[in-house]
Amino acid sequence: MRFLISLVSSSTSIGHHLLCLSRRSLTKKSPFSTLIHHKPPPGMATSEGSLRRSLAEKQSSIESQGKTVRALKASNAEKTAVDQAIEKLNALKLEKSSIEKQLQAAVSGNPDGSVNKEAFRQAVVNTLERRLFYIPSFKIYRGVAGLYDYGPPGCAVKSNVLAFWRQHFVLEENMLEVDCPCVTPEVVLKASGHVDKFTDLMVKDEKTGTCYRADHLLKDFCNEKIQKDLSISAEKAAELKHVLAVLDDLSAEELGAKIKEYGMTAPDTKNPLSDPYPFNLMFQTSIGPSGLSPGYMRPETAQGIFVNFKDLYYYNGNKLPFAAAQIGQAFRNEISPRQGLLRVREFTLAEIEHFVDPEDKSHPKYSEVADLEFLMFPREEQVSAQSAKKIRLGEAVSKGTVNNETLGYFIGRVYLFLTHLGIDKDRLRFRQHLANEMAHYAADCWDAEIESSYGWIECVGIADRSAYDLRAHTDKSGVPLVAHEKFSEPKEVEKLVIVPVKKELGLAFKGNQKKVVEALEAMNEKEALEMKASLETKGEVEFYVCTLGENVTIKKSMVSISKEKKKEHQRTFTPSVIEPSFGIGRIIYCLYEHSFYMRSSKAGDEQLNVFRFPPLVAPIKCTVFPLVQNQQYEDVAKIISKSLTASGISHKIDITGTSIGKRYARTDELGVPFAITVDSTTSVTIRERDSKDQIRVNVEEAASVVKSVTDGHSTWADVWANFPHQSSGSAED
Amino acid sequence: MRFLISLVSSSTSIGHHLLCLSRRSLTKKSPFSTLIHHKPPPGMATSEGSLRRSLAEKQSSIESQGKTVRALKASNAEKTAVDQAIEKLNALKLEKSSIEKQLQAAVSGNPDGSVNKEAFRQAVVNTLERRLFYIPSFKIYRGVAGLYDYGPPGCAVKSNVLAFWRQHFVLEENMLEVDCPCVTPEVVLKASGHVDKFTDLMVKDEKTGTCYRADHLLKDFCNEKIQKDLSISAEKAAELKHVLAVLDDLSAEELGAKIKEYGMTAPDTKNPLSDPYPFNLMFQTSIGPSGLSPGYMRPETAQGIFVNFKDLYYYNGNKLPFAAAQIGQAFRNEISPRQGLLRVREFTLAEIEHFVDPEDKSHPKYSEVADLEFLMFPREEQVSAQSAKKIRLGEAVSKGTVNNETLGYFIGRVYLFLTHLGIDKDRLRFRQHLANEMAHYAADCWDAEIESSYGWIECVGIADRSAYDLRAHTDKSGVPLVAHEKFSEPKEVEKLVIVPVKKELGLAFKGNQKKVVEALEAMNEKEALEMKASLETKGEVEFYVCTLGENVTIKKSMVSISKEKKKEHQRTFTPSVIEPSFGIGRIIYCLYEHSFYMRSSKAGDEQLNVFRFPPLVAPIKCTVFPLVQNQQYEDVAKIISKSLTASGISHKIDITGTSIGKRYARTDELGVPFAITVDSTTSVTIRERDSKDQIRVNVEEAASVVKSVTDGHSTWADVWANFPHQSSGSAED
Repeated sequence: MRFLISLVSSSTSIGHHLLCLSRRSLTKKSPFSTLIHHKPPPGMATSEGSLRRSLAEKQSSIESQGKTVRALKASNAEKTAVDQAIEKLNALKLEKSSIEKQLQAAVSGNPDGSVNKEAFRQAVVNTLERRLFYIPSFKIYRGVAGLYDYGPPGCAVKSNVLAFWRQHFVLEENMLEVDCPCVTPEVVLKASGHVDKFTDLMVKDEKTGTCYRADHLLKDFCNEKIQKDLSISAEKAAELKHVLAVLDDLSAEELGAKIKEYGMTAPDTKNPLSDPYPFNLMFQTSIGPSGLSPGYMRPETAQGIFVNFKDLYYYNGNKLPFAAAQIGQAFRNEISPRQGLLRVREFTLAEIEHFVDPEDKSHPKYSEVADLEFLMFPREEQVSAQSAKKIRLGEAVSKGTVNNETLGYFIGRVYLFLTHLGIDKDRLRFRQHLANEMAHYAADCWDAEIESSYGWIECVGIADRSAYDLRAHTDKSGVPLVAHEKFSEPKEVEKLVIVPVKKELGLAFKGNQKKVVEALEAMNEKEALEMKASLETKGEVEFYVCTLGENVTIKKSMVSISKEKKKEHQRTFTPSVIEPSFGIGRIIYCLYEHSFYMRSSKAGDEQLNVFRFPPLVAPIKCTVFPLVQNQQYEDVAKIISKSLTASGISHKIDITGTSIGKRYARTDELGVPFAITVDSTTSVTIRERDSKDQIRVNVEEAASVVKSVTDGHSTWADVWANFPHQSSGSAED
Repeated sequence: MRFLISLVSSSTSIGHHLLCLSRRSLTKKSPFSTLIHHKPPPGMATSEGSLRRSLAEKQSSIESQGKTVRALKASNAEKTAVDQAIEKLNALKLEKSSIEKQLQAAVSGNPDGSVNKEAFRQAVVNTLERRLFYIPSFKIYRGVAGLYDYGPPGCAVKSNVLAFWRQHFVLEENMLEVDCPCVTPEVVLKASGHVDKFTDLMVKDEKTGTCYRADHLLKDFCNEKIQKDLSISAEKAAELKHVLAVLDDLSAEELGAKIKEYGMTAPDTKNPLSDPYPFNLMFQTSIGPSGLSPGYMRPETAQGIFVNFKDLYYYNGNKLPFAAAQIGQAFRNEISPRQGLLRVREFTLAEIEHFVDPEDKSHPKYSEVADLEFLMFPREEQVSAQSAKKIRLGEAVSKGTVNNETLGYFIGRVYLFLTHLGIDKDRLRFRQHLANEMAHYAADCWDAEIESSYGWIECVGIADRSAYDLRAHTDKSGVPLVAHEKFSEPKEVEKLVIVPVKKELGLAFKGNQKKVVEALEAMNEKEALEMKASLETKGEVEFYVCTLGENVTIKKSMVSISKEKKKEHQRTFTPSVIEPSFGIGRIIYCLYEHSFYMRSSKAGDEQLNVFRFPPLVAPIKCTVFPLVQNQQYEDVAKIISKSLTASGISHKIDITGTSIGKRYARTDELGVPFAITVDSTTSVTIRERDSKDQIRVNVEEAASVVKSVTDGHSTWADVWANFPHQSSGSAED
């Protein structure tokens, strides 16, 4: 049961109708769909069922006791007998009320602290909004659901994350980075399957026209019923839970039938709802002025890479493997965006397409990550209701849990990337897709999931998509997107050769000759060898020509079928693609939650917010404060500021007269790791954000010390050892 | 005349109908419209006119001489007389042919080497396309006009340019960077004027429906006529030139009339053309599933900043001045994109909005740029047909040529930015907008124009847009986007107070009372003081109430008008905005042209292409080559590669057996500034791209030497002085 619940929540956002769609595992679901796993409270389901059963029993006891009381009264029974019966009835009612309370707690209670999680999230989000990490877009016009701006510190964090992504993946792996437009003509997204299949099921309020996601409505209805309606039977509750479990596999018809069966209406107006119908999630537009060239805002960046495969392969000296990468905006016209920054209508994706020979998925740098050990959640553990566990990557690959070395290599690199940013390794797991979650062509797929107050969020998808995407564009465009392997020496291969004897066929079939010839040539190996055998034994054979819609008689003289040996100099094949796809906004949001904490002010009268961003991520690396308002100190601050600028260290001077404690608190809330306080004209203090410890350095050294710590060339412990210091900022507050 | 021609070409792409539109100078025209100034060959217009006149004279002489010949023949004149007349006729024809040749040269000839320019451009573009600096988007599907991908080296150049932009502007100036969505709701672009005015005039082929830009067709028609039709009179030629000159000021009706007058048809089919009508250049879409929320892909990034003014002002501690910045995609659905990479349908903009008190446009860092001297092209020089000249920025500001210090400061910073990237300072000029080019509210506007094979290209617009944008959004949203200046002590101000006496007005006007009251309160100071005077002298006055459409009689008892003194503690005002707006793609394209050159191979049998990118811009900083294929050398190359990666230096190893000369040539073509060649296991050579000089360094030092030169901590001259060296690569070829 636990497994089932987990499965439900993990797949609520995947259109079941997308199971066979090429990009399904990454366009529909991956980083930019919300994949949230709520841990079911242990044993909840069973205790809840038995409570519902007790409640129903109690209710019928009450009804029967009520009858007894009424019967006694009607028969003018003795007062004591009546009183006793009433007393019993009241006792039963009390018992019922107690069971109701238990049940209420079981279904809506917060056994794993979700109230705390809500409060924590609220504290993070308040800080983020107040300090302009993000801003609801077009706020002065009352905003647009699902669109957010990055304000100054958020924008700096994003730019730092992307710069590190480029360093960690593109530069270190010599990837070919490209930058393609967002506006995409229909033909490309027709080939990829998005035009036909990138949909969610929608219902409309039949009177107002308001739109809802059909599965969301049904999900809300079931959850509401389970949590709020204590009178439903244990069987009914189980049924609703089953609906939640299979929600994602319901067709439009099945969803519609459920909505009718439950008498569901529009949540805001109680008006009747339309039948569910698919709504394509791409923003549509028109390219050029004619109105005849439909286009879409790309729902992912990957297609831009696939259509360029031929050029990129050539650029790489016609050698495999190689990876191409792209960072850019993607767009998704959500029906009704919820969950704040996790489900948005426009977002930044960073995608890698690593092209590899399907017959050799080894990776030259695999050994560099093989010894990493982290939380993995393989398919089997999920199916057998176990939890994620620490596994050495090398073991997962050698045991075949992870399909191949290259996939394993990228899982390792993603782990390093996320933990370097400051994601807590204990709240990061790699979850393998279940067989029914994966597209039919995919070899294997793992999601990097990060635990947040919303549950486990899918932030990176890492999929071995086989040759699907390149084949789809080869078919649609007619341009072969293939690679070649030159043999060191020519190889001898046996090939089937079918040679129709046109003269004989012409005599026999006249005007139909061409169709017969084509049908003969189109035979596969098995058919051809069977025909050869029949012709040799019987001299002729009946042969069905589908373009004629009838059988014709083929004689031995009409076709020669043989196997010939040929020398081949190269092998031509469609490369497999391994695709790590990063939802940058989601990673950043989870990073905010993992970095946020609160601590008491020195006076103990206030809770202060802190983001413990590593310097790599921090929006500003350093602040410079003159201790008091004073021209000399301000001049020193300016000198230091100049050297910081020259070193490329982003920083901010604060010359307001605010108390130094308040100024520290302000910058802690922005996650600024270091603060330089000017309290003399010769030396200054540098304070570290989390320990609040301070060292003293000469004015001339200040910038270079901060640079060396923020660049990672030294640690705070190093400078602590090398400079005079004092613990936990005595100057604060 | 020269001036007129220059003016024409400078404004061909500006819709005349946009002259009053808020963003006109930057949305319609600035970086992303093509602003190309062809230098008119000196004196062309006059010599062309006199040639056309001579040609016409010669033609009529020929005709009259022809008559003479025919008359002589008809009258059976003497053979010698006929022969003489024929000889004269032939001489005239020869003279005519000679004039035709001269005229042909004058109108289509390339007196300033435009044939060379074309050839040069072709060489650049070929190299760019072959080495995947860019790729026509969706090529395997035959592409989409106006959409281009950045391939690997182009993408790296772009990312370097943007990183430097962020360093040079955002970090050094402590700007507030934001990142807003591309999808924008209609109300925002309605307020900015784009929904109503962001249009080009279009005509359609009436049979096929093919669309053309009306002004482009007329321009092509006039140019073609002038250049190809030698028979047109000097007057006709002058008329066509006048049309070209005023092309941009023609209304839809006037354009349509010209098209009719000239009998113009669709260029491809010769079908009739429709009347011109406006086509909005924004890509339209729909936000959410209802179809009721129209949206557009933003045509610029600036609006995202303006709507956030209030939050950003607060973030900056409610202090002016401050600047906000944004880098992002912008979209423009061009009718028929031409001119390759200069006019595209999707492009990257980098925009700065510097908010400043309109009463104080000084800039604290102005002195840092005041002594810069570069090519400026003030309004007056353009009007008086002079050319751009070197001016000291400080002089231009102090003389008032540049409107204010802040505008001047940004002009200086833009100059530094562009020349640091590698833009040739002799082919960069700052051109001031003419009075009729500027929006009515703009205080001053300068374009950074870069000379390329297409002429002078506008790449950065720097405009003082006064308070226009903030006011437009204040009006539409009802949210006051204003700043406050707190007075150190309260100021006494005199204010007009109009108090209608409602009781008296009610008695007099009954149901119309409200309209009269509103009209009285709406009087401006002058009107109110006039009424006050009249009431005091005559006791009553006739007053027009426009909402009633009639005069009413106002008596002294009905209104009190007075001036009162009030104490004010602060001043509230709408800030002015100074907006530098960068067309990143255009800057990069011009950079390609300015960086490209060809030189002979050592054997002299080939022309080799080189991009002389500074290390800051180069897509790859360094290549590593083992001199010959050899395991030991390859191992050394890998060690060096590792240190380069650790230092964050992008590089590429080439272990192919290709000759070292060919390998150098390949990387020169990508603009790679340094090549490390491994020719021993202890020391290697480092070769500089442009000089082809080489130094020798120890293996351990190689990465750090390259790093110090690419980071700008030392120059090639420094390392040349410090290491053993040899000139001009003896190993090449």
